[in-house]
Amino acid sequence: MKTRYKMTLAYDGHLFHGFQSQPHQRTIQKTIEAALIKMTKGEMVPIEGSGRTDAGVHAYDQVIHFDYPGNKIAAERMIYALNSMMPLDIIFKKCEIVDPSFHVRYSAKGKWYRYRMSLDRFVDPFKRFYTGHYPYPIDVEKIKIAAQDLVGTHDFTSFAASGGQIKNKVRTMYYTDVNFDQEANELIFDFICSGFLYNMVRILVGTLLEIGNGKRLVNDIPRIIKAKDRNQVRETAQANGLYLYHVFYEDIPIKYRQDSK
Amino acid sequence: MKTRYKMTLAYDGHLFHGFQSQPHQRTIQKTIEAALIKMTKGEMVPIEGSGRTDAGVHAYDQVIHFDYPGNKIAAERMIYALNSMMPLDIIFKKCEIVDPSFHVRYSAKGKWYRYRMSLDRFVDPFKRFYTGHYPYPIDVEKIKIAAQDLVGTHDFTSFAASGGQIKNKVRTMYYTDVNFDQEANELIFDFICSGFLYNMVRILVGTLLEIGNGKRLVNDIPRIIKAKDRNQVRETAQANGLYLYHVFYEDIPIKYRQDSK
Repeated sequence: MKTRYKMTLAYDGHLFHGFQSQPHQRTIQKTIEAALIKMTKGEMVPIEGSGRTDAGVHAYDQVIHFDYPGNKIAAERMIYALNSMMPLDIIFKKCEIVDPSFHVRYSAKGKWYRYRMSLDRFVDPFKRFYTGHYPYPIDVEKIKIAAQDLVGTHDFTSFAASGGQIKNKVRTMYYTDVNFDQEANELIFDFICSGFLYNMVRILVGTLLEIGNGKRLVNDIPRIIKAKDRNQVRETAQANGLYLYHVFYEDIPIKYRQDSK
Repeated sequence: MKTRYKMTLAYDGHLFHGFQSQPHQRTIQKTIEAALIKMTKGEMVPIEGSGRTDAGVHAYDQVIHFDYPGNKIAAERMIYALNSMMPLDIIFKKCEIVDPSFHVRYSAKGKWYRYRMSLDRFVDPFKRFYTGHYPYPIDVEKIKIAAQDLVGTHDFTSFAASGGQIKNKVRTMYYTDVNFDQEANELIFDFICSGFLYNMVRILVGTLLEIGNGKRLVNDIPRIIKAKDRNQVRETAQANGLYLYHVFYEDIPIKYRQDSK
């Protein structure tokens, strides 16, 4: 008899080689599975993540599921047991016992990624693992306008790094927003999409910064989308400014449905 | 012919064994002196810091001075040259050419230390190097009241770790404040003092938390000060929540002179 657990976790990605297990590398998946195998006294419990964040990428709200064998453990006890075995760069925030029909990837209705880009002249020591760095002149208004052109259902082939195995690159971008945080001197990019392709957020940020810097026209996004050609874009923002911010299992809230307006 | 430079810098202390040079350890002093010796092509340029932060302690505004031999370099060029040789966890923010009578330690009129204490149940992965952690019940009002008893000119022997070589432990505490940052779920402690003894801030924070947690009476501070006995206090807060926040070379601003009221 197995019980399916859905768990929400945060991690500081800067000392991990990404989410997915890899030989001889410290990853999120391996770290969690090593704790679960201790709890079961030797039985492997594979976990599924909502998506595979790359090396250096962070998560505020990543979601995983796994089927725990043996006696059912209360959700509150499961979160406590796992947190007590986690290194300090992973924390479980929420635990729910769910129906086996729930799947962390197939049940997801959308994801929210956030990107933090520091505009400081030099890299702030306290931000070096937590933001990208762009010490060049920028026009925020241009970026805000251009980001709106991403909203809607499009083939995002131009913004996907090669190497992904997914053929269908049509996704619905529900919401984009770009804000300047004056106190922190950071640009905050938000993207809510039905699904993201490989490196898509980092390529989008790189392209929007080119627009903000005047290297591209403010209306270049529709042309790039239409081209369906990865060679139309150049820049990929650094991994360390990227955060998996939320995974939606409920319908995307109406306030984030810019695509329906 | 030598030129005296006064420089303000920030550092993330978590990968340093403190400010002061030590054999086989990565320290702030060693890192800066290694860069200066490259600039002089082999001549050692010793630096003086306003104070020696411990392993894991951070600085927003540490101040150093040194006497640079050879041709005078403009302040703006000096800051650029040094930053280009610094690792990403140190940054120079300001550079001034000063009179040789200026001394980074003797000319200081006071220092501001800040302490960040997370009250989260579990350690937030993004804060593990940048805050202390106190997951226990706390009465902030009691701490605010008790902290006021520190203001004024006192012998702070009870709050100094043994091992310091300084005999005279009379200092003037100009200002204390304790605030709860609801969004971050952190207590922020601020102390401005004519000078700090070894581990003084961390011991003060530890003692104030005991008061907030009900382990000590709210009016215990005057008694502890009067006792002049290190054995009257127990707790020393962790290093990683501590920040050297500012060094005053001007008179302490009147708004921070609670001692004069």
